[in-house]
Amino acid sequence: MRRAKMGFFFFTSRAAARFLDGIGRPGVSTAALLLTAASGGGLVAYADSAGGSAPEPSQDAPKKKVLVLGTGWAGTSFLKDLDCSRYEVKVISPRNYFAFTPLLPSVTCGTVEARSIVEPIRRMFEKKNKDVTFYEAECFKIDASKKTVHCRSAVGTNLDGNGDFMLDYDYLVVALGATVNTFNTPGVLEHCYFLKEVEDAQKIRRGVIDCFEKASLPNISEEEKRKTLHFVVIGGGPTGVEFAAELHDFLVEDLVKLYPAIQEFVKITIIQSGEHILNMFDVRIASFAEEKFQRDGIEVGTGFRVVKVSDDSITMKRKSVGEEVSVPYGMAIWSAGIGTRPVIMDFMQQIGQTNRRALATNEWLRVRECEGVYAIGDCATVSQRKIMDDISMVFKMADKDNSGILTLKEINDVLEDICLRYPQVELYMKSMHMLDIADLIRGAIGDSHKESMVVDIEEFKKALCHVDSQVKSAPATAQVAAQQGHYLAECFNKMEKCKENPEGPLRMTGGYKHLGQFAPLGGEQAAAELPGDWVSMGHSTQWLWYSVYAR
Amino acid sequence: MRRAKMGFFFFTSRAAARFLDGIGRPGVSTAALLLTAASGGGLVAYADSAGGSAPEPSQDAPKKKVLVLGTGWAGTSFLKDLDCSRYEVKVISPRNYFAFTPLLPSVTCGTVEARSIVEPIRRMFEKKNKDVTFYEAECFKIDASKKTVHCRSAVGTNLDGNGDFMLDYDYLVVALGATVNTFNTPGVLEHCYFLKEVEDAQKIRRGVIDCFEKASLPNISEEEKRKTLHFVVIGGGPTGVEFAAELHDFLVEDLVKLYPAIQEFVKITIIQSGEHILNMFDVRIASFAEEKFQRDGIEVGTGFRVVKVSDDSITMKRKSVGEEVSVPYGMAIWSAGIGTRPVIMDFMQQIGQTNRRALATNEWLRVRECEGVYAIGDCATVSQRKIMDDISMVFKMADKDNSGILTLKEINDVLEDICLRYPQVELYMKSMHMLDIADLIRGAIGDSHKESMVVDIEEFKKALCHVDSQVKSAPATAQVAAQQGHYLAECFNKMEKCKENPEGPLRMTGGYKHLGQFAPLGGEQAAAELPGDWVSMGHSTQWLWYSVYAR
Repeated sequence: MRRAKMGFFFFTSRAAARFLDGIGRPGVSTAALLLTAASGGGLVAYADSAGGSAPEPSQDAPKKKVLVLGTGWAGTSFLKDLDCSRYEVKVISPRNYFAFTPLLPSVTCGTVEARSIVEPIRRMFEKKNKDVTFYEAECFKIDASKKTVHCRSAVGTNLDGNGDFMLDYDYLVVALGATVNTFNTPGVLEHCYFLKEVEDAQKIRRGVIDCFEKASLPNISEEEKRKTLHFVVIGGGPTGVEFAAELHDFLVEDLVKLYPAIQEFVKITIIQSGEHILNMFDVRIASFAEEKFQRDGIEVGTGFRVVKVSDDSITMKRKSVGEEVSVPYGMAIWSAGIGTRPVIMDFMQQIGQTNRRALATNEWLRVRECEGVYAIGDCATVSQRKIMDDISMVFKMADKDNSGILTLKEINDVLEDICLRYPQVELYMKSMHMLDIADLIRGAIGDSHKESMVVDIEEFKKALCHVDSQVKSAPATAQVAAQQGHYLAECFNKMEKCKENPEGPLRMTGGYKHLGQFAPLGGEQAAAELPGDWVSMGHSTQWLWYSVYAR
Repeated sequence: MRRAKMGFFFFTSRAAARFLDGIGRPGVSTAALLLTAASGGGLVAYADSAGGSAPEPSQDAPKKKVLVLGTGWAGTSFLKDLDCSRYEVKVISPRNYFAFTPLLPSVTCGTVEARSIVEPIRRMFEKKNKDVTFYEAECFKIDASKKTVHCRSAVGTNLDGNGDFMLDYDYLVVALGATVNTFNTPGVLEHCYFLKEVEDAQKIRRGVIDCFEKASLPNISEEEKRKTLHFVVIGGGPTGVEFAAELHDFLVEDLVKLYPAIQEFVKITIIQSGEHILNMFDVRIASFAEEKFQRDGIEVGTGFRVVKVSDDSITMKRKSVGEEVSVPYGMAIWSAGIGTRPVIMDFMQQIGQTNRRALATNEWLRVRECEGVYAIGDCATVSQRKIMDDISMVFKMADKDNSGILTLKEINDVLEDICLRYPQVELYMKSMHMLDIADLIRGAIGDSHKESMVVDIEEFKKALCHVDSQVKSAPATAQVAAQQGHYLAECFNKMEKCKENPEGPLRMTGGYKHLGQFAPLGGEQAAAELPGDWVSMGHSTQWLWYSVYAR
């Protein structure tokens, strides 16, 4: 088991290294066909030349200032792919490193070293010979009206003042991520551990050992040993589940040998408010995980909402009947959701985006009603354009011969473009188990000979009228953040070329390549949700998943 | 350079692993001849059988309780070599790991990972199948009159009280080490970094990077950059010198590439109160180090005593003229000496050992006037017995034929035993450049034929009367601590056998095998002081030094 883990570790290290180096090789995963929207609404297709053939910026004109806030998945991915010679690039982040966060749960138990999952931002630039200025500081205010941001150094004050400084920009890329969401549950901030930053993972590692050392002290009653060695994970999403699985492996493989006298008192519990853990995945994955946890003796408490955490007990409400129960615990890990950073909250207030969890951007990742500001990653949500809003334009584009009637061939000719622009079309067809567009049309106009099938605008509308129900916002994952960063960098790299199309290429309408989501279960078993709705169960999927990041 | 460093790293890791595993293999470095003192004062020699042939303790008699305080070099070395089946062994330490402290300066700069230099104590026991109880707690009071110690858990309180507990013992091994000595210099505790614990090294690593990030911020004046990037090491002993050398390598090899814009502002200074750095070594080593540092641009300020540290400047007094100077700094590392832990201070008070820096033990490491209590490592000093106090006994032992006169052959027959018991004899002869004992005798009684040289008791006294001037206390080093732990474990392992000699074997009178001391200078160069007064200068000595620990 240990040996297998080592193999796993080395693999993931390499995978991480490949991620860190590999992103941004020109053209590697850039679509061969991009669409740009002319202001009139027509569609122009052109071949993507991977940025290389775009004209160099004039030597005389001063470079535009690009300011990037954040060095997480989104910001780092953007910076890796950005052609920094075209802009004057500055980066602000309170962390001078990028962290490969999917491995954070492994850091908690020592499977992977914290240092193996971080890459210094400056080293990244040095390696790629990028001329980028980095400031280790926190942005605490965005002033879009003056095109400036206000920052505060994390490493103390300067001689002249309090360490604050101001920077201006032409383009601002907001990639500040999200924060932990306690849902204002009392006691969470004071008593729970979190799994968001590298420091969190290190604190958890130390905290687990502290519980074992405490339970090993003399004069400790059995009751207290049981309490001290009760590890409670609040939130049954991928992070919580992965942590519970890692912790279980750590206990079974390592700690039991080092603390044999107290092993009988150890217990792990996952508390989930929904009816299943991993409820964002296919139900088969949730069941697989729950069964595996049952075999391992990890208690899964579903349908409970935590209402209070004190220094020695967790109070929760059974959602079905409203009854409250309290459980004593030794260590609690809060992994129940993400919230909005204050600086984003303040910025949303300024631009009138109130009562939202994240910045709303249009399909090109530009913050709505805010010129020159882009937002990517967990601090943003892309608003997917509805096909029914553009249905006449789409019909007109497909109707090459201006006959007022679309043949199946005419529809098929632009289908790829449509699906890129409106990914909900493909999702809808999939959800209805339709094999091709003919099935969709046939459903609307009734059966007929395939070859002679034709539709007018009203029939076309009827065929597509339910499609927009499939509009989904992208999940707040590392994978989506990295893809957004990559996409935005490509846009910036060809901005010259796209000057006549100020909104940039049409693609990127929430249509992330869905590379699969993953929830490792420890013990070399893992469940993955993969493209094509294929569910794999077993120990090889973990590798597969990391290879998603390694590209 | 990087590659060479890696090679070095792997070597030292292996060396550390060998140290961690290798200590305590029975008989590996046990002398073949031990002497035991009978109460009458006569000497009994017997062959050491490496503990293996000593009689097993009776199954019926309850095992004696051995309590070990501390898991540093001394305590860990004792535990590794102790035959734990003979005793009921309990260990108290606030740290549940052993740290290979000679590599701490390397941790500060990332040459070596913190985790590579620590070994969990429980894993150590598990590996060696030792039945030892470990409590992660701090001993805050030793009560020798009641044979108990009072401890406090470092990981919180228990349900019933404040987490304090009490343990009793038959034998107590005090291996609590020393603490940082600030000599009550104002501002040191608040503003300086230290290099004593693993956490200290990690803090320094983060602190160095913070200085570079701070100096990289916008709106920072040149003056402030220079201040922020001024690294001051206070104390020119091996630790301070090694840290300065590591830091210099780190700057030259790594940081300069990552922070090219500010490299011209970086400066390292060592402040030393004596006239030379490394003044505990041969003067050639000090000169070598000073010349190397000069070439590297590291400023060495000797003859300065630091009198105050504020948040942005260090005030020091030039010892020769008394004038005070202040230097602005960004980071200060205090490495100027070791002090006494409060619990040791309190214990010394109880047993009447006042106004001392460390516990006084007799030659068998037993705390003077304190039955059943032993002290090893930096918290103890061994009082070397003077040969002149025992001169009649020594004469009588050598005078096999009771003639009242010693021949050279009679002296040579017991010379090895004498030198073991009174290592100052050998040190004295060496310092006087004497080749053998005949030179010593001849110096006292005047020249004569070697073969017929004989001495009576008065002439014997005269020959040896200056020898005790060479009594030296062992330095507070990891090496000495480990050797003391090893020695004491051997004593405990054969305690049954030595019951008739309650003071244990005669050997161990401060006569540590002097394995050489070492001060790495970075840049693959190192200077070592090796046994036989041989001075080596160059890059291979670093390896040699680590092999001392690796045995």
